[in-house]
Amino acid sequence: MGKLLIVGTVAFDAIETPFGQTDKILGGAATFIGLAASQFGLDSAIVSVVGDDFPSEYLNLLKSRNIDISGLKIVKGGKTFFWKGKYHNDMNTRDTLATELNVLADFDPIVPEDYKDAEVVMLGNLHPSIQLSVINQMKKRPKLIILDTMNFWMDNTLEELTEVIQHIDVITINDEEARQLTGEYSLVKAAAEIQKMGPKYVVIKKGEHGALLFHKDKVFFAPALPLEEVFDPTGAGDTFAGGFAGYLAATDNISFNNLKNAVIHGSNLASFCVERFGTERMQDLDRKQIEKRLHQFKALTQFDIELR
Amino acid sequence: MGKLLIVGTVAFDAIETPFGQTDKILGGAATFIGLAASQFGLDSAIVSVVGDDFPSEYLNLLKSRNIDISGLKIVKGGKTFFWKGKYHNDMNTRDTLATELNVLADFDPIVPEDYKDAEVVMLGNLHPSIQLSVINQMKKRPKLIILDTMNFWMDNTLEELTEVIQHIDVITINDEEARQLTGEYSLVKAAAEIQKMGPKYVVIKKGEHGALLFHKDKVFFAPALPLEEVFDPTGAGDTFAGGFAGYLAATDNISFNNLKNAVIHGSNLASFCVERFGTERMQDLDRKQIEKRLHQFKALTQFDIELR
Repeated sequence: MGKLLIVGTVAFDAIETPFGQTDKILGGAATFIGLAASQFGLDSAIVSVVGDDFPSEYLNLLKSRNIDISGLKIVKGGKTFFWKGKYHNDMNTRDTLATELNVLADFDPIVPEDYKDAEVVMLGNLHPSIQLSVINQMKKRPKLIILDTMNFWMDNTLEELTEVIQHIDVITINDEEARQLTGEYSLVKAAAEIQKMGPKYVVIKKGEHGALLFHKDKVFFAPALPLEEVFDPTGAGDTFAGGFAGYLAATDNISFNNLKNAVIHGSNLASFCVERFGTERMQDLDRKQIEKRLHQFKALTQFDIELR
Repeated sequence: MGKLLIVGTVAFDAIETPFGQTDKILGGAATFIGLAASQFGLDSAIVSVVGDDFPSEYLNLLKSRNIDISGLKIVKGGKTFFWKGKYHNDMNTRDTLATELNVLADFDPIVPEDYKDAEVVMLGNLHPSIQLSVINQMKKRPKLIILDTMNFWMDNTLEELTEVIQHIDVITINDEEARQLTGEYSLVKAAAEIQKMGPKYVVIKKGEHGALLFHKDKVFFAPALPLEEVFDPTGAGDTFAGGFAGYLAATDNISFNNLKNAVIHGSNLASFCVERFGTERMQDLDRKQIEKRLHQFKALTQFDIELR
C-alpha cells in the first residue's frame, strides 16, 4: 500500500445541464480525484487552496475519507475558485459561463512533510508550473507520477507544460488534446509521439467512447459503460484519474497488467460520477455498488474465443 | 455448419482519400460481406445484379471463395451500379460524388433454390423492399436474419424499412442512424426502442469507436483496433457484417455468447479492410494474419480483475 499525493483545484462549481442546474456546489479536480481514490482505502493528501468562504462541511467530507488536508491552504478573506458551465444537449460540448480564479491566482503549493515520500503523485489539471513545483518538492523520485492536463494549458503555457511532461510517467489526456499536442490525427501515432516527450504510459480519454492505454507497442482499451443517461459529465475525467491513481497506489504495483486494471477501475468510478450533479454520486457510493458494476464491465468486454 | 445467403449490391466504386484515388474498382455491400464471410470456409451465395460490363475476373474471385453466384444476375447491355466518393481528412465524413444506379434500378432478387433453406440470411444495405422480397422467398424461417441499413432508407423509404425490420433478428446500424430511427440520443435507450420494433439483437456500429451488441438487458462491446492509419474506410461496415454473419453461420450457434464472438470476428476483419483501397486487403488476407490479430483483440480488451 503506497501513499497518494494529489495536487489540483478544490472549487465551487455551478452547473447547468438539460436536466437542471445547481447553485455553487463542491467541485474541483483534486476533490473528484480524492473522492475516487479514497474508494481504495488508502492514505492520500490533497495540496490545494481555497478561500475562507469554503464550508467546513466540505473539509469534513474530505477528512472523513482519510484525505490529509494539511496541504489544503485556506486563505483568510480569500474567495474559492469558481467555475460555472453549461452543457449542451449532447453532453459532449459545454460553454464556460464564468471562471473566477480568486485564491487560485496566487497559489503556491506546499507539499506536507509526510507526503514528500509518497509513492504515487497525481498532478490534477492545473497550471503546469504548479504541477512542476510539486514534483520538485518531493524528497525522492516517486514510483509513479501521473499528470492530467487540458487544451487550455497547451494554448497558453505550452513551454511549461512541455517541461513538466518530461518528468512524469503517465499522462492522461483526451483525444482532441492528444491530437493538438502532437499534430497527429491517428491516436496510435499521437501516443507514440507523446511517449517521446517523456511519459512511458499514455492514457487517451475518449469520454463516452472509453479510454486507451498505450505503452511501447502495447495498447489496452477500456470502454465507457453504456448508460441510459449522462446526467452531468463534470468531474468524470478527474474521477477516472483518481480511480486510476488510487488503485495503483493501493496495490503498489505498476506493471502494465496492473495499469490495465487501473484503467478499468477508473472507468468504473467515472461511470458513477456522471449519474448525478457534481460529487453527489461519489459521496454515497459504496463498495458493493462498485463491485457490482465491475461485473458489468467484465460482461461488457470479456469474450471467450479460443486461440492458439 | 449452416449456409449463408447474402443479398446486397455488387458494384464499381471509385474512391478518393487523402492517400490517393482509384479508378473503378470492385465494390458493393454483398461483395465485402461475401469476401469477409468466406474466411470461415462456409457455403454462401450472393443474390445481386450487375451489368455485362462487370469483369469475369471479379466473378471468378467470388467463385474462388466458394460463393455461389447463380443468384447474381448479369443484365445484358446493362451497366453495373457505380458509386464515387471522397473522404475528408478525418476519414469519418465523406461526400458522394456520383451514384449511378444502372441495373440496380430494376433489380428483382431471385433466391437460388439451393439457398431457400439457408440457416442465416444477411440482408446487406439495399432498398428495404428488396430485403423483404428475399425473406419472402425463403422456404422456411431462417434461424437468423440479419439486416444492415443506412440513413438513406430512413429518409426515403421509412415505411418499407419499418416493415422489414419487423421480420428480422439482428439489425446492424450506426450510432447516428440508431438515434435517427428512434429519436433517442442515448444508445442504450435507442437499442431498447429498436428491439421493440422487431429485432431481438441490435448491433450499433461506432466506426473507429467500436461496436455495441444489445440483447434485452445485456450489452457487449467490441472496440475497433487502434490503427496507425485508416487508408480507406469503404466497406468496413459491410466487412463487419460479413464477418459477423459468416462466423454465426459457420458455427451454427446463435447464443448471446456466440454473438459476442461474432462481433469480435466482424471487428477483426473490418480492421483489415480499411488498410487498403476497396477489397484489396480482403483479397490477400490469410488465416494466419486473422488469428494474429485476434490475439491483439484479446490483448486490447481482456483484463484480470478478480471478482466474487
